[in-house]
Order: sequence, then C-alpha cells, then structure tokens
Amino acid sequence: MSKQQLSRNNKITHLIAEYLRIRARSTALCERLEVEDYTVQPIADVSPPKWHLGHTTWFFEEVILVKHMVDYSRYHQGYRTLFNSYYKSAGAHWLQSQRGELSRPTVSEIMSYRNYVDKQLVNFLSTAEVDSAILSLLEIGLHHEQQHQELLLMDIKYILGCNPLSPTYFESSLDNTHIETAPWRSFDEGMYEIGATDSSFAYDNEKPKHKSYNYAFAMSEQLVTNGEYLDFIQDGGYDRAELWLSLGWDWSNDNKIGHPLYWQKIDNEWYEFTLHGLMPLALNLPVTHISYFEADAFANWKGKRLPTEQELEVYLSASSDLERISNIKTQSAKSADIFHPTSSDMPFGQVWCWSKSHYSGYPGYKPYQGMLNEYNGKFMCNQFVLRGGCVATPSDHYRHSYRNFFAPHQRWMFSGIRLAKDI
Amino acid sequence: MSKQQLSRNNKITHLIAEYLRIRARSTALCERLEVEDYTVQPIADVSPPKWHLGHTTWFFEEVILVKHMVDYSRYHQGYRTLFNSYYKSAGAHWLQSQRGELSRPTVSEIMSYRNYVDKQLVNFLSTAEVDSAILSLLEIGLHHEQQHQELLLMDIKYILGCNPLSPTYFESSLDNTHIETAPWRSFDEGMYEIGATDSSFAYDNEKPKHKSYNYAFAMSEQLVTNGEYLDFIQDGGYDRAELWLSLGWDWSNDNKIGHPLYWQKIDNEWYEFTLHGLMPLALNLPVTHISYFEADAFANWKGKRLPTEQELEVYLSASSDLERISNIKTQSAKSADIFHPTSSDMPFGQVWCWSKSHYSGYPGYKPYQGMLNEYNGKFMCNQFVLRGGCVATPSDHYRHSYRNFFAPHQRWMFSGIRLAKDI
Amino acid sequence: MSKQQLSRNNKITHLIAEYLRIRARSTALCERLEVEDYTVQPIADVSPPKWHLGHTTWFFEEVILVKHMVDYSRYHQGYRTLFNSYYKSAGAHWLQSQRGELSRPTVSEIMSYRNYVDKQLVNFLSTAEVDSAILSLLEIGLHHEQQHQELLLMDIKYILGCNPLSPTYFESSLDNTHIETAPWRSFDEGMYEIGATDSSFAYDNEKPKHKSYNYAFAMSEQLVTNGEYLDFIQDGGYDRAELWLSLGWDWSNDNKIGHPLYWQKIDNEWYEFTLHGLMPLALNLPVTHISYFEADAFANWKGKRLPTEQELEVYLSASSDLERISNIKTQSAKSADIFHPTSSDMPFGQVWCWSKSHYSGYPGYKPYQGMLNEYNGKFMCNQFVLRGGCVATPSDHYRHSYRNFFAPHQRWMFSGIRLAKDI
Amino acid sequence: MSKQQLSRNNKITHLIAEYLRIRARSTALCERLEVEDYTVQPIADVSPPKWHLGHTTWFFEEVILVKHMVDYSRYHQGYRTLFNSYYKSAGAHWLQSQRGELSRPTVSEIMSYRNYVDKQLVNFLSTAEVDSAILSLLEIGLHHEQQHQELLLMDIKYILGCNPLSPTYFESSLDNTHIETAPWRSFDEGMYEIGATDSSFAYDNEKPKHKSYNYAFAMSEQLVTNGEYLDFIQDGGYDRAELWLSLGWDWSNDNKIGHPLYWQKIDNEWYEFTLHGLMPLALNLPVTHISYFEADAFANWKGKRLPTEQELEVYLSASSDLERISNIKTQSAKSADIFHPTSSDMPFGQVWCWSKSHYSGYPGYKPYQGMLNEYNGKFMCNQFVLRGGCVATPSDHYRHSYRNFFAPHQRWMFSGIRLAKDI
Repeated sequence: MSKQQLSRNNKITHLIAEYLRIRARSTALCERLEVEDYTVQPIADVSPPKWHLGHTTWFFEEVILVKHMVDYSRYHQGYRTLFNSYYKSAGAHWLQSQRGELSRPTVSEIMSYRNYVDKQLVNFLSTAEVDSAILSLLEIGLHHEQQHQELLLMDIKYILGCNPLSPTYFESSLDNTHIETAPWRSFDEGMYEIGATDSSFAYDNEKPKHKSYNYAFAMSEQLVTNGEYLDFIQDGGYDRAELWLSLGWDWSNDNKIGHPLYWQKIDNEWYEFTLHGLMPLALNLPVTHISYFEADAFANWKGKRLPTEQELEVYLSASSDLERISNIKTQSAKSADIFHPTSSDMPFGQVWCWSKSHYSGYPGYKPYQGMLNEYNGKFMCNQFVLRGGCVATPSDHYRHSYRNFFAPHQRWMFSGIRLAKDI
Repeated sequence: MSKQQLSRNNKITHLIAEYLRIRARSTALCERLEVEDYTVQPIADVSPPKWHLGHTTWFFEEVILVKHMVDYSRYHQGYRTLFNSYYKSAGAHWLQSQRGELSRPTVSEIMSYRNYVDKQLVNFLSTAEVDSAILSLLEIGLHHEQQHQELLLMDIKYILGCNPLSPTYFESSLDNTHIETAPWRSFDEGMYEIGATDSSFAYDNEKPKHKSYNYAFAMSEQLVTNGEYLDFIQDGGYDRAELWLSLGWDWSNDNKIGHPLYWQKIDNEWYEFTLHGLMPLALNLPVTHISYFEADAFANWKGKRLPTEQELEVYLSASSDLERISNIKTQSAKSADIFHPTSSDMPFGQVWCWSKSHYSGYPGYKPYQGMLNEYNGKFMCNQFVLRGGCVATPSDHYRHSYRNFFAPHQRWMFSGIRLAKDI
Repeated sequence: MSKQQLSRNNKITHLIAEYLRIRARSTALCERLEVEDYTVQPIADVSPPKWHLGHTTWFFEEVILVKHMVDYSRYHQGYRTLFNSYYKSAGAHWLQSQRGELSRPTVSEIMSYRNYVDKQLVNFLSTAEVDSAILSLLEIGLHHEQQHQELLLMDIKYILGCNPLSPTYFESSLDNTHIETAPWRSFDEGMYEIGATDSSFAYDNEKPKHKSYNYAFAMSEQLVTNGEYLDFIQDGGYDRAELWLSLGWDWSNDNKIGHPLYWQKIDNEWYEFTLHGLMPLALNLPVTHISYFEADAFANWKGKRLPTEQELEVYLSASSDLERISNIKTQSAKSADIFHPTSSDMPFGQVWCWSKSHYSGYPGYKPYQGMLNEYNGKFMCNQFVLRGGCVATPSDHYRHSYRNFFAPHQRWMFSGIRLAKDI
Repeated sequence: MSKQQLSRNNKITHLIAEYLRIRARSTALCERLEVEDYTVQPIADVSPPKWHLGHTTWFFEEVILVKHMVDYSRYHQGYRTLFNSYYKSAGAHWLQSQRGELSRPTVSEIMSYRNYVDKQLVNFLSTAEVDSAILSLLEIGLHHEQQHQELLLMDIKYILGCNPLSPTYFESSLDNTHIETAPWRSFDEGMYEIGATDSSFAYDNEKPKHKSYNYAFAMSEQLVTNGEYLDFIQDGGYDRAELWLSLGWDWSNDNKIGHPLYWQKIDNEWYEFTLHGLMPLALNLPVTHISYFEADAFANWKGKRLPTEQELEVYLSASSDLERISNIKTQSAKSADIFHPTSSDMPFGQVWCWSKSHYSGYPGYKPYQGMLNEYNGKFMCNQFVLRGGCVATPSDHYRHSYRNFFAPHQRWMFSGIRLAKDI
C-alpha cells in the first residue's frame, strides 16, 4: 500500500468516524423529546424535529448515494419529495409550511431510514472508489447536519415554549460567568481581509477572501443584557416610532410585539422560557431571541449602531487571543449541555449578533455547482447577516467567517446584540 | 329499599355501564393509530385525535364534576382552557385552529386524564345524591362523546388521507350490497309532524315537535352513486357556471376543486381513499365527501333538487318498515367495523344527505340553559342541515330527527346526495 | 287600427314614458355628487356610482338591444365586460372588487353611453315588433334600475360617510313623526298564503304563491329605536358572548364593532352620519345600518326574537288598512327627498327588517330562463331575507312580497329591527 | 443695503422663482388628466394623483409655515392627517392603502389648497427673516416635490395602464436613437470615492463622501433591450428555477408573472403600454418596468451580474465626458415631453438601473434631524438601490450620487438593467 493510499485510507476512516459521531448527535439531541414533540409545526418557520432527522438523511442519500453509488436503491420513493426542503433541481418538494400536517412517516420509521442510509454510506465509503469531489460533498453534508442540529434546538425550544404548559427540555441551573472587560475595543481605519480561504472547510458564501476598507470603529466588548433591554422597554422603546425602521414599526404593531420572544410577565414579574425551564429573568445575561427590527431600535435608543458584518469579523478574529480562548474553552466544556447563554462577556459562542449588513455575495462570489447551487445564493435577498455563533452551534461547526442570515422579523434563533460606534 | 330507590339504583347502574362502554369505544377507535397520528391538525376543521380524547373528558369534568361534586379537584388547571372547545361561559379557550401546535399534553397524559375523570365520575354517580338534572347532563355528555366518535373517524380519515403515503386505518374489503328498489317514493301534500318529543333523548335543536305543511314530493330511493357523479364530472359539471351557486362557483375555482375530497386520479384511473386503504373507485357505491355546493350543482345538472330537511325526515320515518329494518340490521351488524358506505339502497346510515334547509331553530325552539346554551343555537347561521346518519355514526346515537349541520363548503364528513323532485 | 293594437300602442307609449322617468331618476340621484364621488370604491361591496350608471345601461343593451334589435351595434365593445356585474352566461366580467380601480370611462362618457342606449331603446320600442317576452324583459330592466337606485343611495352614503371630512349629500332637517300604536299585534296559528301571484310584477323569487303554516305570534308595531339600541350598548351588549351567534361574535371582535355603522362618538356625545349631514343621535328614530348579527344579539338581549320572513309578510299585508296607508302616503310625499328614516311607527318603508329566514327558493320555485337565470337563484346561500322596504326604496318598486337579502355581516343598506315573539 | 443683504435677497428671489416653477410643473403634469384619473388607487403602491398634489403642499405647510411663520393658520385642520404620508412625528396619518377610498377633498379643493399655501409661502419668504436652516428646508421641499413629479408619472402610467381601455396620456411617436458604443467599459481595482459632498444639494442618504475599495469590473455600455429580454422569455427564463432568487421564484409564481409589467400579448404579437399609447414592442429600446427579481434572473441567464451601487456611481461619474454630455443634452432637450426611454446607449437618464446593493446607510451616515429624520433612514431595510435616473426624473433633480430604492418585487417605476462583470 502506497503512502498516498495509506493517508487516503486514514482520511476515510477519519471521515467515517466523524460521520457517525455527528449523525449520532442529531438523534441524541432528540432523546429528551416525547414522540408528539417530534411531530408538530406551530409556525411555518419551525419544522417538526422528525422532519429534520429525515431531511438530513435525505441530503446524504440524494447528494451522494443516489448520484454516486452503483446500484443504490432508495429507502422509500416517497421520501424523495417529502424530505426535499427546497431544492428545485432535485424535483418536487413538500411545502415547508405543511410539514406539520404529516403524521407519517413516524419517528420510528425515520430512525429506520437513518440507519439504512448510514449503513449504506459507510459501506460506500469503505468499499468504493471515492474521489475528492465526493469527499467534499460528504464534508458539506456533515456541516449541513450540524446546521440542522442548531435548527433542531431552535425548533424544539419554540415547540416547547409556545406550549402554555411550558414543558422543560431538561432541567439545569444556569451559571452566570462574568469577566470584567473594557467596555469598547477600537479598530483603526484601514484595509482588512474578510472571508475564508480554501485551507479549511467553509461554505461558498464565505469566499473568496477579499479586501474591505473599513472606517475606524469601536465594538462593545459586552453583549447587550436583559437588564439593558428591560431599560429600553421601560423607557417606552416599543412605543416610540422614531426609534424604528418603518417595516419594523408595522411588524411590531401588527403582531403586538412588546418584549423578546420568550419573555413572559407573570404576576408582574418577568420570566424567560429557556430549554431548561421557565426562569426569572436574569438581568445580566445576554438578551436573546430578538428580531433585527428590535436590535436596530435598541441601538438607536442607545445612540449607537449595529456593526457591519465586516466589523464583526474583524472583531471576532481579533478576539481570539490565547488567554481569552482558554477562558472560552473552559466555558464551552461546561456549556456542552447548556443551551442558553450564560455570559455577556464572551466574544463569540453566546448569541448570534445581528449585523446591519444585508446578506449578499462577496466580490467574486462563486456559488457551488449542481444541486448545491441552491444552498446559499438564492437566499441573498431581504436577509441580514448574523455573526459569532451561539450556544446551540456545534463548536466544531463554528468559524469567525461564518455568515448566518435571517429575515429581519425572525427571532426564534438565539439572536442578540453587540453594539458598535464610529470613532 | 323502596321500589323507587331500586329503580333509581338500577338506572344509575345502567348509566354507569353505558358511560364505561361509550368511553371505552372512543379510545378503542384510536387503537390503530400511531402516536404521531393523534397529534397533527392538517386543516383548522380537523382536530388532533388526542384533543378529542381530552375534550370529551373535559366536558364531563366541567359540566358535572366541577359543578356538582363536592371537593372535586381538577386533574390539571391548564386543561380547563386547553380542552374547552368554544364555551365562552366556561372561560378562555385555546383557539381551534391552533390545536395542532401543541405537542403536550401527550397521548399518554391524556389517557391518565381520562382514567382520572372516569374514576371520579363513577365514584360520584355511585355515592352522591344525583338528581335528574345531573342525569340529564350525563346523558348529553354521552351523546356528546358519541358525536366526537364520528368526528374522530372523520378527522382520522383526513389525517391519513392528506398524507401522500396514503396510510391505511385498517385493511378490509368493502362488500357492495345492492337491493333492487323502486326509483322514487312519493309523498302527498299535507301537514306533517316534524321533530322529536320528550319521550326519549334528543338534542334541543330537534324540538319541539311541530306541524309543517309540505307540498307533494318524491324522494329518490337511491343515493347518488360514484358512477353518476363521475358522469357529472365528465359532462363538464365543474366547468359550467350555470349549475352552481355563486359562492360555490368562487369556492370551486379558488380551491381548484374538480372531484370529491378523497378521489385521486392515478395513471388516468380513478381511486378513492378510504379508511380501509386506497381503492379503485367503486361506481355503484354512494358518492361521499362532497360539499353542499357540489351536491347542489349535481342536483341542478340532473334537473332535480335537494330535499328540504322536513322532506328527508318524512322520508326517513316512512322508511322504517320492518322488512327494511331487518335488512339494515343485518347490514349494520356486518358494518360495525367498516367505516365506508357499502350500499346506495339504504334509507339511512350510509352517508349524511345534504338538505337545502338552512340550519335554524324550529318554531318554539328553546335552547338548553347554562353552559350548554352554546351547544347548538349559536351555530344557526350559514350552515345547512344534513339528515340520515352515516357509517361513522354510532348506531345507538342516531335518530331520524337528528339534525347534523355543516357549512356549505365543508366536506370532510361522510356527506352525500339523495335527490328529491316536485310532483 | 284594431282595439288590440291601440291598447298595445298605449301600453308601449306608457312603458316608454316609464322608462324615461325611471332612467332620469338614476342620474338625478347623482346630480349632487362631485365627479370624484362617482369614482371611488372604498370597500368591495360599495360600487362607484358611475359603475351603477353604466351597469344599468348595459343591462338594457345586453338583455334587449343586442339580442332583439336588428343591426344594433354596441356603443363600445369594451363595456360588454366592464359593466357586466356577474352574469357568467354573458361572457367575462370585470371583478366586482376592482371597479374602483378604473378611472375610465369617465362620468361624462358614461352619460353619453346612457343617452345612446336610451335613444336606441326608445327607437326600438317605437318601431319594432315588440312581443310580450321583450316587454317582460323591459319591465324587469326597469325594476333592476330601481334596485340600483337604492344601491346608489347606499353606496353614496358609504362613500361620503367613510370620509373623515363627513361631506353632506344635501342638507335637510329630519322631522320625527310619532304615531301612538299598540305595542304588539297578534296573529293566530294557521295556514297563510305567502308570495306573489302573476297579476302584477314580481321577481321570480317571490313566486309561486304558496301555503305556509305559521304558529301564533305577535309582531312589534314599533321598529327598534336608536334609544333602545343605545340601552343595549350601555348594558354591555357587544361584550356579552352569550347574546351572539358564534360567527357574529368572531365578526364583531375581528372588526372591532361596537355600534351601528354610521354612529360616531365625538367628545363623548353620539352622532349619526346621514345623507343630510352628521347629526346628534335621535333616540326615537329607528336604528339602522346594523348587521344580522347585531339584530339577532339585540333580540336575544331583549328576550324576543327576529321574525320569520313569512311572519313579516303576514304582518305587512295586514298593516295595509286604509287609515294607515293614508298616513303613510302623506309621509312618503314628504319624504320624497329625505333619505333617512323618520318614524319608528310605520309598518313599512322605513328600514329593511331582518328576518331570521335564510334566503331560499319557495316550494315550486322556477327561476327565470336565459341570462336572467342568474338574477336570484344563484345567491340562495348564506344570506338572510329582509322585508318591508326603506326610505331609499322607490315607492313604486316596493311590494309586501319583496324579498331583499344580504349576508349576515353586511350593514351598509338601510337595515333595522322589528321584533317578534311567540304567543 | 449691504452686499451680503443683496446677495441674500437675490438668493431668495431666485428661490421664489424656483419654487413657483417647480410647483407649476406638478400641476402641469396633471393637465392631461380627467378628474377621475386624479382619484383612483388601483394598488396600494400607486397613490391618486390628487393626493400627490395635496401631500407636496402639506410638506411645505407642515415643515415651514406651521413651524416658522408667525400667525400662520392651516388651510384645513383635516388635511394635517389626510396628507401626511407617514411622518409619525407629525401626528396621525391616513393609511397609504386607503388613499383611493376618499373622493373628497376634490381636485378643485386641492388646487385651492395649493394656491393658498403658495401665496403664504411666497409672502413668508418675501417678508420674514428667513434663516439658512429654513432655506435648507425649502430646498428639500423642492426636491421632495420633484421626487413626487416622478411618482406622479409612474402612478398616472399605472392608472392608465391597468385600465382595459388603455387610455393614452398624450400621443407622441417615440424616436429611437442609437449610438454605437463599445460593449463594455472597464474599471481598475482600487479605492474610489463614493457619495456627495456638501457643495451642492444632496439628500442625507448620499453622504458622507467616503472611500470604497472596488475590485476590477466592467460595465456594459448598453442597457438591456426589450429584444434581449424577449430572448430570455423565449428561452424559458420565467420557468427555470435555477435562475431565480428563492423569494423571486415564489413571487413570480404566486403572481403569475411572465413578462415586464406593461407588456401585453395581443393576437400573438407583443405590445408595450406607454404614456404615449399602446405600441408594438420596440426590440432595441431598453426594457423597463421590471422587478429586482427579474433583473437578477436575467443577469444569471446572461452569465453576468448586476453591478453594486458603488460600481454604478463610478461608471456614471466616468460617463460624463463632454461629447457624451452634449449628446445627452440634445437628447434630453428633445425628450422633455417624452416619458418613455428612447435609447439603450445613454449612460443615464433612461431607466433606473437595479444594483445588487441593499439600501443602507453609508459609513458615518447622519440622518436629518426633526421630522425629516423619517425621510430616508427608516426605509433602510429590504430595499435595493437603483441608480442613473430615468425619463420621468426632472433633469435638474438628478445627480450621479442619487440613490433611488425600491423593494425587490416592485416594478411600477421606470426600472431597467445595466449588466456588470468581474474582470
């Protein structure tokens, strides 16, 4: 066996292990659910957890097995349509807003589907001639599955949180780590490099690495806290049109929005629903589950502004000094099983920070070819970029160049605010 | 023990037995479901089966136990709202259209709720001084539960039928019984008595018995069949505005309606989804799952008309001659486990027949008092009456005076057509 | 010239005069409008006045001239579609809800259209062989035009009334005639004749005359007044679910209804917008512009009920004793130019009274043939009958057998309440 | 009189002349309308022309007279609300979507309102101490009025164009000027200056002038023509999901979009509705009235891309060489009365070119203070920037730094496509 073959075999062995580890985490995240929790779709944005388990499986089947494995036969013809999210080039797809109408396939049938595809894929990787293009698709598939792990947590939280019985995902107390930091960190005017290189995995939308000229700015070292946000509310923030974008004002009035998604006022006290139960509002934890509209209104009220995505990337990259990282690692080891932000001082990994940047292709952007052409580019309209990862983001899935994106009214993700200002 | 006491005790013993029998049938109807099937709500009209199981329990709790049992304590405070369907006088109620958003309480928790209330109610009936007003509420509660048994079958059918995988409730072949009958049965002009007396159970909306002057008419002895309805389709019935009510024309165009709810065309052949599987369309079985709009358009196409509800009641009452009844009994013994019409010749018990009568109070109508005031009267607007029962109606729940009612666009119930004509 | 010919010629001469008189009234009703008032459509139900002027003209063109006049050429090909209201058999029609989108044809062009058709029609009647079928269509056309005269007043009122500047149609003071009457008039149980004969003009939906068995009832001799309705409001009528139909409760909550359509509260005083200006609410005038939902809730609050349409027809027919008629005539001479009810004591001609009867075909109902088949029958769904005429109804258009009909939420017509009760 | 006073007086005299000239043009643009054309609002985006005439007047009244003129009394209290477009800080405003519901005030009343305000304003300018802050507001007011002149033409076109009678604004033949140009113009990578300085009038959103680093690109010297766009349609452009943004695909399917807004196919020939009548589609004129979604799909089909707004500004500024300007001037002299693009070769002034840039504040952006704070900033969400002006833009209102913006589905403005590519 040549060295090259050996190295290749090692790489494949490693990828299989990664595949099994990541796939197992998806089902593990659901272990605390009742069958009924897997099934419902309270709003169009929130998919039934069982759908996520099916769709991520479909992704590997459709992108790798069907196209590249000789004599592969699909687990079920009907799943081709049912678990296609939106890929027009992969044929018809079931409407997103109607995922919760389907009681079948059952959770148990979907688990069988997962097992079938896992077995086939491992078999395929172990035995077939797998070229680098396929390995690249596999890598994307794994990152895709991790994206859905975050979505699973978001959707589970919504499903439990909209229930008047306020069921708990699992009980746990929330520690609150506070590290004293300087309030603002300054950055000079000048040319910066933005985006990812090809040296390690990144999505097409993070490339190419390119120059961006930024004016001098300062970034807050602290995430906006529940306490600060409560001040905004108590100062009439939701009633002062001058603070709001025009669309945001209409949105908050039409939907009678007066506080972050999971806040509840009970007997005149504020509580926050978390995956770990309904808890008294912790004033020094980061505010989360807010829309772009709310983030922007808050920034206006504060006399500051939201950062651009370039500024956030510059800030995040600069934040990765060793001492901080070691703090964060300690933190994240601990938070492995906590799905709620516990610190307003950390530069990343707590809440996705809204940027004021519209989600658009970088200069020279080249979308994936084939079916995955639809992965990112077609959503570059009416969405804003968020940066920095959150407690629900798998830590080995996160990168500083990562561009998350949502419509300005959405807030069921773990979104938050980091303020910037001109200097 | 006096004779009166003895008779009273016997009556209570009998009612307890009835209660347990009827309650058990509700859960028995669900035994063939997967947990996921209990949970979803594909359209607002169709409630999750688990909601029906909770709501019928709530009804006994709210109407009897909470009001009449000393020291009764509710199973769960939250259920008061969650399982209230629409009774404003019973406090807040969860929105009908959002029943499918709730994964909790689980099926298993609802079964515990049923057990708790059953135990309490049996205990209450066995030991407390139960007056006739309470027994009357109990009787209504049992009929209410039986109404929901029909709704359960309708909703289960919709949940399975809207699923592209076409799951089967349970497999069974459908016999087709055909009895030769005269095509039309005539009735003279004159005064008829319509409605129910107090001699046995009937809802408030079936009373009082009253005089109604009817002109001479003839009623078809045959239900309209799938074959006849197919002729209507093939003759362009859905494309000819002159056959349709104005609202019906808009409805069929806006919703792209071109056939009964559960018909499917596969490879140019017609199939019908039933609770017993997807089957080739049986041309001589009664057409079912059609709206008032379709029934009315069909009647116009045929040059006939829909009957009034008075005409249907006159016809149904006249149909109960002994020989026919014995046929029907044989039939219904057999059909105990078949939830699809098997004969177009039977006068009742196959499909609910649309009448052209708007649902309204009879002359001298007195609604129930108290919370049950909301049982019938408040729905007397924009609905049409259907008569004759269907295969999903519990046979001991059915009466010729029974007035079912639905909005003219609805068709997920087992509705069909019996034509009438002036003579 | 034979006698028959003479009589025929006289009849035609008379019809031409009637035609010109009635046509002139339509434009006369609009003389007080600004061009802008002719053009807008604030809600789908309310058509621009210029559309009414065009449509009534189209009716004569389409039903008579195009079909029966040799060599007739349409005034404008485009009007065939633009002024067709809903007759599917007459080809395409412009959507009702989009009539207000069209600035053209202008008012002045529509006036030319009217002149053209009038000239052609008079010429046709004067010179052609006009058979009785055509004369019958002409008669329908004239009644159709008179129906639209009432609609014009309703629509003009809405257009002015929804304007925050509250423009006045024309100024006039409203007298208030009060005749003392017995409060209730009783009718015996028994068989009554309902409907119109062929002896004089009536629409198809008023026929055939037929027997109807009514139970004993009493009808209020007084229309419900603004004062009584205000009591209902002040007693929390709009907030008490138990008084309302289920659909009505949803309607009033969804639309935040808390008073009749044209009432306004200014500086804590009630006013009513009328065609003669905004006036302080006159407590002893009949309440008007209320929906079926409101009328039904009011009746429930009062412990009475709405009458059936048969009861109203019996009452109206019985009310035509000579003395009363002479009163009414005096009244109506005076009210020729007043388009607001001025008396709660008159049996008819003030406000259309809601009946609890669904609009449906009478026993033996035969709709018109041809295009006019769509005149009445296709609307027999989800509407309630109103009886008795109103101040906007041309007096020579009114009959006791007249069946007006509206959906239960509509209230821009001059609708009101006359209560009934069982005796 | 000091020199300074003299210069100031001259400046005021000049501004008064400008004011009268610009105000007169607004009414002149409407002279060809019928009264009915001033009044309707076929879709929410399109305001009745009379509303524009009122609103622009309200702007001067509200921003200058009410705040700065001693003893000024409003023309009509009700107009304060009726003609407020969306300024929350100026109190309540009539809903945009309901402007077409109002027949009053009439056109003639609005003309009186204009005259009143004009007289007062001229008087105020001539006699009061008018400081530079007020002059600055006046300047904004004049540009605001010019913006509405373009809107007037857009809205008039829509009102006439949606009418099935296709009325003509005024007749005129469209010349087609074709100048041979090189197909692409290249620009080097490097730092560019973007935005307006304070040396002449510009809106707040065009400032501050700032550095932007652009990669090398080439801009097409030709606007995309109707002929090229027709090729896109005939190549199935509207049916190929892979060319479309996700939101765009849904938009085009939901609204059954298959061609630019004003194209019509009659007897298999393409026509285009213009303000000068319905004309056979001119293949070498610029395509116009297309949405961002369509522009983006076209660019994808062509294998090119839409430019950024920075690239467009760089291109426009570079295009202003003398020879070209003289061509353009000749052209624009001629086109003074033509409101349809006549050349695909001109760098600006033909159709607004969609950029791929989201409408956002420039680095260091400072919005106006006071009521005009709402002029631009609050719309910086879900809109895209267009550059280059169009035939409906007053030529003295246009600047290369001008940022027009619309939502990606809108297309009733004179929008078009100029392609870019990376080099």
